[in-house]
Amino acid sequence: MSLHFEVLKEDIAGRIGRLTDGKKTLYTPAILPVINPHVPLITPRNLWDMGFTALITNAYIISRSREFREPALMQGLHTLYDFPGIIMTDSGSFQLSVYGDVKISNTGTLRFQQDIGSDIIVPLDIPTSPDSPREQVQEELACTLSRLLEAKEFVDENRYTLAGPVQGGSFPDLRKEAAENVSRMGFSFCPIGAVVPLMENYRYKELVDVVMTCKQYLPSSACIHLFGAGHPSMFALAVAMGCDIFDSAAYALYAKDNRYMTSYGSHKIHELSYLPCACEVCQNHTARELRESEERERLLALHNLYVTKAEIQRVKQAITDGILWELVDERCRSHPALLSGYRQLLTSAEILADKDRVSKRRFFYRGAESCRRTEVIRYHAMIPRFSAGATILVSFDREQSKDYDTVFFFKPPFGPYPPELKETFPIGQSEIPSWDEDMVRTGCAGIVKLIQAYPDSSVTVQCQRRWAPLVQEMLPSVGVVYETV
Amino acid sequence: MSLHFEVLKEDIAGRIGRLTDGKKTLYTPAILPVINPHVPLITPRNLWDMGFTALITNAYIISRSREFREPALMQGLHTLYDFPGIIMTDSGSFQLSVYGDVKISNTGTLRFQQDIGSDIIVPLDIPTSPDSPREQVQEELACTLSRLLEAKEFVDENRYTLAGPVQGGSFPDLRKEAAENVSRMGFSFCPIGAVVPLMENYRYKELVDVVMTCKQYLPSSACIHLFGAGHPSMFALAVAMGCDIFDSAAYALYAKDNRYMTSYGSHKIHELSYLPCACEVCQNHTARELRESEERERLLALHNLYVTKAEIQRVKQAITDGILWELVDERCRSHPALLSGYRQLLTSAEILADKDRVSKRRFFYRGAESCRRTEVIRYHAMIPRFSAGATILVSFDREQSKDYDTVFFFKPPFGPYPPELKETFPIGQSEIPSWDEDMVRTGCAGIVKLIQAYPDSSVTVQCQRRWAPLVQEMLPSVGVVYETV
Repeated sequence: MSLHFEVLKEDIAGRIGRLTDGKKTLYTPAILPVINPHVPLITPRNLWDMGFTALITNAYIISRSREFREPALMQGLHTLYDFPGIIMTDSGSFQLSVYGDVKISNTGTLRFQQDIGSDIIVPLDIPTSPDSPREQVQEELACTLSRLLEAKEFVDENRYTLAGPVQGGSFPDLRKEAAENVSRMGFSFCPIGAVVPLMENYRYKELVDVVMTCKQYLPSSACIHLFGAGHPSMFALAVAMGCDIFDSAAYALYAKDNRYMTSYGSHKIHELSYLPCACEVCQNHTARELRESEERERLLALHNLYVTKAEIQRVKQAITDGILWELVDERCRSHPALLSGYRQLLTSAEILADKDRVSKRRFFYRGAESCRRTEVIRYHAMIPRFSAGATILVSFDREQSKDYDTVFFFKPPFGPYPPELKETFPIGQSEIPSWDEDMVRTGCAGIVKLIQAYPDSSVTVQCQRRWAPLVQEMLPSVGVVYETV
Repeated sequence: MSLHFEVLKEDIAGRIGRLTDGKKTLYTPAILPVINPHVPLITPRNLWDMGFTALITNAYIISRSREFREPALMQGLHTLYDFPGIIMTDSGSFQLSVYGDVKISNTGTLRFQQDIGSDIIVPLDIPTSPDSPREQVQEELACTLSRLLEAKEFVDENRYTLAGPVQGGSFPDLRKEAAENVSRMGFSFCPIGAVVPLMENYRYKELVDVVMTCKQYLPSSACIHLFGAGHPSMFALAVAMGCDIFDSAAYALYAKDNRYMTSYGSHKIHELSYLPCACEVCQNHTARELRESEERERLLALHNLYVTKAEIQRVKQAITDGILWELVDERCRSHPALLSGYRQLLTSAEILADKDRVSKRRFFYRGAESCRRTEVIRYHAMIPRFSAGATILVSFDREQSKDYDTVFFFKPPFGPYPPELKETFPIGQSEIPSWDEDMVRTGCAGIVKLIQAYPDSSVTVQCQRRWAPLVQEMLPSVGVVYETV
């Protein structure tokens, strides 16, 4: 039976979802560790025991393997791998992107993936590099789309879930065209393809553009797989944009390369004097013991999987609490390139605000970037609906006054609020540090919304002397009176 | 033998140190878990096996305990606790601060602590609450100082290490007086006392003021203990100010209260749907299983200790790499009150810059706050030493030109640099996101230093049109030419 995807909880564009055929279930966001049967560092059964209920493996490698081709065809993948969860197979597209050629056709790989009993089947799409020229991207996209059509006819979608990869290189209009076509063909499991070169080169700003474009033209009910994304430091960012599934050989490749993953980046193991992690590997070894262990590669792979899994859990908890922005902020500051990506995402906050949830557990201010969060935008959009009289006071220190028809209090970065909203989200559940200029400026932008909604009212701001110049700069039409304290 | 403290590595005012008597050794920063012999949730031996080489316990409780007083006196604490590491004992000051009275004298507790074989002995100082009025703080400080003098005469410092607590409430001059007296008396193990009410109420801004004041007047060779600090989210901040030792019952108290610690805050266990951690407790239980376990309290305490230990390791690695500012930034954004504390610390960056190390592994820009880091201040202090001719070009896009005597390149937030410095720290090892206004503004402040050093030279800035208004605002005396690209 093919897999059905259901969204259970949402925050920003991220969600907790369930991908299930009734027997096998994967809760998302999830990472599918890559299994290479020729490199049994961590076995599929190990993964299952660690709590991974899905994995991805390469059908092309299996189809070309003397050792595994026949057993896979005879026993089926699940028996061969001793893995009762969901198995997704890649088609050979990866090899195509690396070697430029594969010895299998689209229908050839689709048939093979069905024959070995894969749960999620990928057509032989063409992953066009983000640096390819427009003509090439167009040509290869046309080819990918025709192969998707062919796959739609070829694959028994009652039994198998067919993935519809979205290509289009770095051209927004081509990514849009790809996403629209994939939607139109009815795909509900959509990998966003060929982004690995962007991630490998820390081009997160471009990654955000690609993902945001694709997401905008894919159905919100589709399960989105960010193909090849596997570093825990970028899960939060990708999930915030609406990605549900990651996959990666990174845990193993990094281990082979003596690299130690963390949720905030990676260390070369020989550069570590201390193991900054609570996992059993790091609790039972010193940095030196780990470095010198004969089992180093396996231990590192295990550590990498533990932190990867912990980060997925953290993302899920953040969605549950409605504090995914805070996790995005935390993770993205760990590398300046991720910070560029985060700031790029914030330029789309208007789009994200439309669908963001109304109430959240809390809003913690984490720096100037927090002024641009969806919660602030949503709040500003609500301000024109406040009722107000002909004379309005916005009181920074929450002083009531009978000299005005309406008194609003003020909480940066949101802005003016009627006293009766002081317990509701976000006013009541937001915590901010000592006021800074960025947040007061953003709060004043909220007062602008009020002025625009009541152009005939007279607005006065009561504030401390230190804020008066900023208030006068932002709101030249208002009167300013000073706080009594 | 009493303990000797040695600083091994430094970053900001933080350090990795070694506290040792030749047999027992504690590497700092370190946390001393609190052991209450009446609540054997986690035993001292458990702690030792987890890698904790020091603990703290309350001599007053032991002295008043029917069960433990005699065994402690007979066998000594180390045998009673089956703990071969360093044992510090508190005197009863904590009880004094909570109950206002204790049934023991200063010399009484000092004698008892020696008799049970404590390694680090604390006099009966008076922990004056940060909200106490000046007269009370003065009076109690005078009493504390006289008890410290008494202790100095009473305790055999060849055998025992005597702690010299620094009190003084929230009054900077009294903290200064306390620290100067403690220094003068020759204490080399100095707890900063009575800060728990500040931490419990998230008053991190005030905590920073207190610690920075004390540190300024204590010898830099002294081992500094931040008494009662035990939440991993604030270790980095405290270490950056020069604290070496923490202690806390928090791991156990939080567990009792069903609270789950993380390096970024705490969760109530019933609010967790997922366990966002790699430790063995969290790997072997779902949130629900943990919540419903009969062993919940012990498991939570274990988890809390694992994450506490991992954070200490992370802090040590950050000092080793010279990236402690980045960890401070990461941790302090997790709560707005910590962010206020962090920003308060940045107001002392000039003081910290004096002693900060010259070269570091890297500088990652993490937001506007990074502009105020010690590395930027040190760099600005170096700018006047650059040599330059009568005509100077500062080229934002690193274009060479023969029309000027001297050409500098420009890297925000640092500012102008001679091309030959491009590989040296911080220019060569700094990574920044796409330029933002804060960093360019700070870089321009670097150009101001250059102009001040060469008042007779003519300075021209070559930049993109988007930066021209900012450059002209910051540097009205310079000529601006546009980049050719």
